[in-house]
Amino acid sequence: MILTVTLNTALDITYRVRSLRPHAAHRVSEVTERPGGKGVNVARVLAALGHEVTVTGFAGGHTGTVLRSMLAGTPAGPEPGAGPRAGRALPGEQGADAPGALVDALVTVSGATRRTVAVVDERTGDTTQLNEPGPQISPAEWAAFLGRYQELLPGASAVALCGSLPPGVPVGAYAGLVRAARSAGVPVLLDTSGEPLRRGVAARPDVIKPNADELAELTGSHEPLRATQDARRRGAHAVVASLGAEGLLAVTPEGRWRAAPPAPVRGNPTGAGDSAVAGLLSGLVEHLPWPDRLIRAAALSAATVRAAAAGEFDRPAYTELLGRVRVTGAASAA
Amino acid sequence: MILTVTLNTALDITYRVRSLRPHAAHRVSEVTERPGGKGVNVARVLAALGHEVTVTGFAGGHTGTVLRSMLAGTPAGPEPGAGPRAGRALPGEQGADAPGALVDALVTVSGATRRTVAVVDERTGDTTQLNEPGPQISPAEWAAFLGRYQELLPGASAVALCGSLPPGVPVGAYAGLVRAARSAGVPVLLDTSGEPLRRGVAARPDVIKPNADELAELTGSHEPLRATQDARRRGAHAVVASLGAEGLLAVTPEGRWRAAPPAPVRGNPTGAGDSAVAGLLSGLVEHLPWPDRLIRAAALSAATVRAAAAGEFDRPAYTELLGRVRVTGAASAA
Repeated sequence: MILTVTLNTALDITYRVRSLRPHAAHRVSEVTERPGGKGVNVARVLAALGHEVTVTGFAGGHTGTVLRSMLAGTPAGPEPGAGPRAGRALPGEQGADAPGALVDALVTVSGATRRTVAVVDERTGDTTQLNEPGPQISPAEWAAFLGRYQELLPGASAVALCGSLPPGVPVGAYAGLVRAARSAGVPVLLDTSGEPLRRGVAARPDVIKPNADELAELTGSHEPLRATQDARRRGAHAVVASLGAEGLLAVTPEGRWRAAPPAPVRGNPTGAGDSAVAGLLSGLVEHLPWPDRLIRAAALSAATVRAAAAGEFDRPAYTELLGRVRVTGAASAA
Repeated sequence: MILTVTLNTALDITYRVRSLRPHAAHRVSEVTERPGGKGVNVARVLAALGHEVTVTGFAGGHTGTVLRSMLAGTPAGPEPGAGPRAGRALPGEQGADAPGALVDALVTVSGATRRTVAVVDERTGDTTQLNEPGPQISPAEWAAFLGRYQELLPGASAVALCGSLPPGVPVGAYAGLVRAARSAGVPVLLDTSGEPLRRGVAARPDVIKPNADELAELTGSHEPLRATQDARRRGAHAVVASLGAEGLLAVTPEGRWRAAPPAPVRGNPTGAGDSAVAGLLSGLVEHLPWPDRLIRAAALSAATVRAAAAGEFDRPAYTELLGRVRVTGAASAA
């Protein structure tokens, strides 16, 4: 089982409007809702790839109820009806093409799960994002989560710690969660930003996956290779930087590689980074060599950009891209 | 009991952001939620004035559940703790200053009650509005509402038909509801816009309360007095036009008046028109002469603009404005 942690889960709402004009009233032509938060997105992609995944973190209020019912009820894969539904697949049904199982181990809190509202301007195709801060987490709720995390770790083949912290969670939270995973011998990937990333990196996670902005904020350098190397010196064993159209740059103890599709992919980049994380974890638990993990991550990321719905991935595109992602670089001298 | 009809109820969400910039990501600093839809707003003001009110229309989904729990649980008045809570007040406790009772007679539907999102720019104070269209109403749900409405009419001293129509409700809906109220001998006020207003007016409601834009759309004239007179010729017995800072213009069978506070009121106009409707209904069921109804409506409207929270009214300001609203005009020669 792969464990994903989403401390600030979200109900992701997308509005389509003809043209967004500040200070005007807009009729929303289309409303879509999906379960969100980075670790939830990672889990849905992993389940679609056939992995067993457990989702933990916090959920509460009516928005939390909607989120959990969607997690339980929606197909894990991008092809509804093509296989068993998420949360109900039996282990024996699992495989490379059959959706896996997604288990809800979220901790219920008294505050309400946040909403995020993405307003898509039909004229320009651009998106304006409004993100609620998330529920206030009490010390007792944080302690309940830590207990749940410790219970889940022994059964995990890998853990991903993803996204922002809701109010009330200590800023050093990820550092503690990284240390607990390492003590339990579970490989841990950290995907966050700002001070939680800075502190988390110092606890020596196995992998971090910053984007260009997060990497620059962490290291002060806007030169990706230099910044990636600096991030390793700060404590991360491996750094996989997602550089948008330029693909992935990985600096690891085993070597240094770049992976990118043969041509830039057009579409909506929402969730592309989360799909890359899912690809890295999927390859990690299957003990693939780094170049193969990076091919999977880059192909999933590009297939997410190409998908019609934000945060989903286009499975035919993924399959096709697997054979076309180019990896350059070399293993380190042993 | 006063009956208010809100076919397209809403969960009104307000976001505060530092500065709204299209195509950027925004951290929302403050989230507030309140039950909404024009007839719901009218009902809350009426209950705060001490009237017994019944709310009908449609509600569904998780947003409908939140709306109904807020309707049941929030104090009817703007002063929490000052009196019995909404939905629990006994008839004997009712009075001019004690909050009245608000009864939920909404019809449950399978679709979800819409959200409206108001994004307040802290820099400019301006608001950008995003309105979901509302749930699809099935023919069976519409029939269920018509049955509920016919049951409620005999117990009503007045009925207000307010706001937009959700998808699936026939565009002539208000015309039918006006005719049913008139057949039952219940005075009926219509507050809507566009084609539903045009058709509803032809069914001869007792009062309509358009704003300047709605009046111009109905009549083709941007000259308020001319447009108001034209709206009467189209079927409305009385027309009370809300003209923003210029106050109210009433053209009725009993005479023609203007009512406005002595100076323009600064603040948030959200809900001001709904408060004016509440004032008109309150005066109607108390059989006040038109000038007194208009004073009440104009004072409530201005006290709503002045309130800190959108859609609430400032009670001390209301009490003070009651003595300061100026009415000009004259009764018709009998």
